Amino acid sequence: MKRNVLIIGAGGVGQVVAHKCAQHNDILGDIHIASRTLAKCEAIVRSVHEKKSMKTAGKLVAHQLNALDVDKTVELIRSTNSQIVINVGQAFLNMSVLTACIRTGAAYIDTAIHEDPLKICETPPWYGNYEWKRREECEKAGVTAVLGAGFDPGVVNAYAALARDEYFDRIDSLDIIDVNAGDHGRYFATNFDPEINFREFTGQVWSWQNNQWTSNKMFEVRKEWDLPVVGTRTTYMTGHDEIHSLSKNLGVPHIRFWMGFSERYITVFTVLKNLGLLSEQPIRTAEGLEVVPLKVVKAVLPDPSSLAPNYTGKTCIGDLVKGEKDGKPREVFIYNISDHEEAYKEVGSQAISYTAGVPPVAAAILIAQGPWDIRGMANVEELPPRPFLNLLNHMGLPTRIRDEAGDRPLTFDDEPAQAAAQRSAAG
Amino acid sequence: MKRNVLIIGAGGVGQVVAHKCAQHNDILGDIHIASRTLAKCEAIVRSVHEKKSMKTAGKLVAHQLNALDVDKTVELIRSTNSQIVINVGQAFLNMSVLTACIRTGAAYIDTAIHEDPLKICETPPWYGNYEWKRREECEKAGVTAVLGAGFDPGVVNAYAALARDEYFDRIDSLDIIDVNAGDHGRYFATNFDPEINFREFTGQVWSWQNNQWTSNKMFEVRKEWDLPVVGTRTTYMTGHDEIHSLSKNLGVPHIRFWMGFSERYITVFTVLKNLGLLSEQPIRTAEGLEVVPLKVVKAVLPDPSSLAPNYTGKTCIGDLVKGEKDGKPREVFIYNISDHEEAYKEVGSQAISYTAGVPPVAAAILIAQGPWDIRGMANVEELPPRPFLNLLNHMGLPTRIRDEAGDRPLTFDDEPAQAAAQRSAAG
Repeated sequence: MKRNVLIIGAGGVGQVVAHKCAQHNDILGDIHIASRTLAKCEAIVRSVHEKKSMKTAGKLVAHQLNALDVDKTVELIRSTNSQIVINVGQAFLNMSVLTACIRTGAAYIDTAIHEDPLKICETPPWYGNYEWKRREECEKAGVTAVLGAGFDPGVVNAYAALARDEYFDRIDSLDIIDVNAGDHGRYFATNFDPEINFREFTGQVWSWQNNQWTSNKMFEVRKEWDLPVVGTRTTYMTGHDEIHSLSKNLGVPHIRFWMGFSERYITVFTVLKNLGLLSEQPIRTAEGLEVVPLKVVKAVLPDPSSLAPNYTGKTCIGDLVKGEKDGKPREVFIYNISDHEEAYKEVGSQAISYTAGVPPVAAAILIAQGPWDIRGMANVEELPPRPFLNLLNHMGLPTRIRDEAGDRPLTFDDEPAQAAAQRSAAG
Repeated sequence: MKRNVLIIGAGGVGQVVAHKCAQHNDILGDIHIASRTLAKCEAIVRSVHEKKSMKTAGKLVAHQLNALDVDKTVELIRSTNSQIVINVGQAFLNMSVLTACIRTGAAYIDTAIHEDPLKICETPPWYGNYEWKRREECEKAGVTAVLGAGFDPGVVNAYAALARDEYFDRIDSLDIIDVNAGDHGRYFATNFDPEINFREFTGQVWSWQNNQWTSNKMFEVRKEWDLPVVGTRTTYMTGHDEIHSLSKNLGVPHIRFWMGFSERYITVFTVLKNLGLLSEQPIRTAEGLEVVPLKVVKAVLPDPSSLAPNYTGKTCIGDLVKGEKDGKPREVFIYNISDHEEAYKEVGSQAISYTAGVPPVAAAILIAQGPWDIRGMANVEELPPRPFLNLLNHMGLPTRIRDEAGDRPLTFDDEPAQAAAQRSAAG
């Protein structure tokens, strides 16, 4: 039984993580939240108390921390006696936080691949660039490290594992579809840190097709989907972390990621990119000031967390899986619908943050309770999906399925987590 | 007879002014060019020599000058014995350069209204905000100050004066149309200093309608025109300096300015404006750096002077005048067509700079020779148009007319400048 959670990062996702940890502090124990800016942590602590999210009386403490400083992070993990670290800080922090976990024996959870701030959109193999190089180190130290345990990557990986385990004998293609059909009422805004958001789309688009990496330009491949609840939506093929791990772990010949973009997003992105305003390379103004254009764009855009109060509408994220079962072709869509207003009411964040922030807390609970405490490194699809999806059903992210038998919720209540874990490991 | 010219400003227009002064240095005498950046002046001097633009052997000297420093400007006017100053520097310099002219007795010529760097798009009366407040001071000192002597304002004001003098008994409406049908081959670029360019369009649009100021939003009023040479073109109603002086000096009930914009320009402008990237108010990045967004946009955009070598196509700028002559309704379009490639071949600048830079040199010649040396302040429409347009016919900016008798060049050769001046003054 591991206990006590240190959350690193106090953005919109950190806020959700803190609320959800608080809602389960009977299992998770003390909760600590740390970021570069203490005031942001303190605001989250206030929000948790205002919404009375703490299930039982317990510790919830804000800390100032530069998580690039491994020694300081080690010190904080030790002084707070945290046995689980949920890293939802900027992607640049992953390797230093992981190092601190290895040095202290704390379990590590993150939601996105490590990025080098000086490189944009590194080419695949993404997890192979940093995380997987440290797999052996984790195993030697007996440290549990669950990679990419947000929604996508994360829940969509569990959906894929579930499809493999229970719905298919053979999977031919996996299309992960992520559509935000919400409306924040602003001319333009990104739903999370603009620096990270734009960086995702400034390089090449990588997909896994015919068992090999295929490269396209951003906004080159477009596809419309008819989706539950949100209806017909336009998406564009995008590179995304989980394509890499799933291609390694699932043996599926076609794995693609599709993200919904509005016309407005594409127009703004295209203009900014073509003008050079998304560059992370410093330029010099006529007055001699050295400045990174992307950081100026970030500064003029709305703070993503400021969007939440007026956000309406829903998100739809899921896996469209095609293949064969019992000699017959099959197609299933396993998905979740989340609502921006409901998320804000519950935890003070919109649904994008909500879908990203709830799953790592479910992962932390599964580590605390044992089924996911594997004392090694894993991506989500390598772990038993049922206990994870079962927890999420009860934590605000219910799973639904649409297949030949119609559209319905999926429940996993009949099965205790431990049994499911054994079943999946065997299957 | 005034002689010796000091050019202030070494941008694309300054380059044209220097070449054209050199081509007429038998009349104009010594030529001096000054700007904040000495190297830019030196590059222009080199260009003038390379293209052998000097008509006779004479002085052409580069100087470093901060023209906001009136004492230093006075000193330079005196030490160079300049009797005519052509101010084509940034619009923020007008008042300090005018002061230096008043103190030295040198004639003053500019091509655009004064702007306060801290105010964007001041409301009408534009000339009344700064320039005209100093009219009496000029008259007392016997200083000639010709305001707005570029193309628009400038030549279009002379076209309006010519229409009034020779083509109409009564003018009902004056539409000034400025279309650049050229192509620089870049995704996006402004044809002159982006800071000035965008500032023109970030405020309200003012026009003179039914004898009063009318306000619209930018890109609100759109109109297509069928124009000579460049064909059917889309323009948008825009505020422009000359609407103000013409409304005062012409007594015409409708005066509007129309500028051609490509779809690309409008898209880029709309995105940048809505995002707040055209703001001249400093913002602070997450890292604490204070920076003016507009200056960052300027830094990432192509240097307007870099566009010239690859610029193709033509500009069309003119006055569509409607009214009555001899009891019959009449409509004339008085205009000029300029060619980007020809301008570059002659003076190393594209046609936008060319059309703005040639007219103030014609004005300088008319001051040097007498007809425009009025020892007071005037806008171009208050001065005799024929000698000006006659000079321009021979300096690369020929005037054409399209009316009920067809489309043809207008010539003024039959009439010496002095006679024309008297005629216009009488008429």
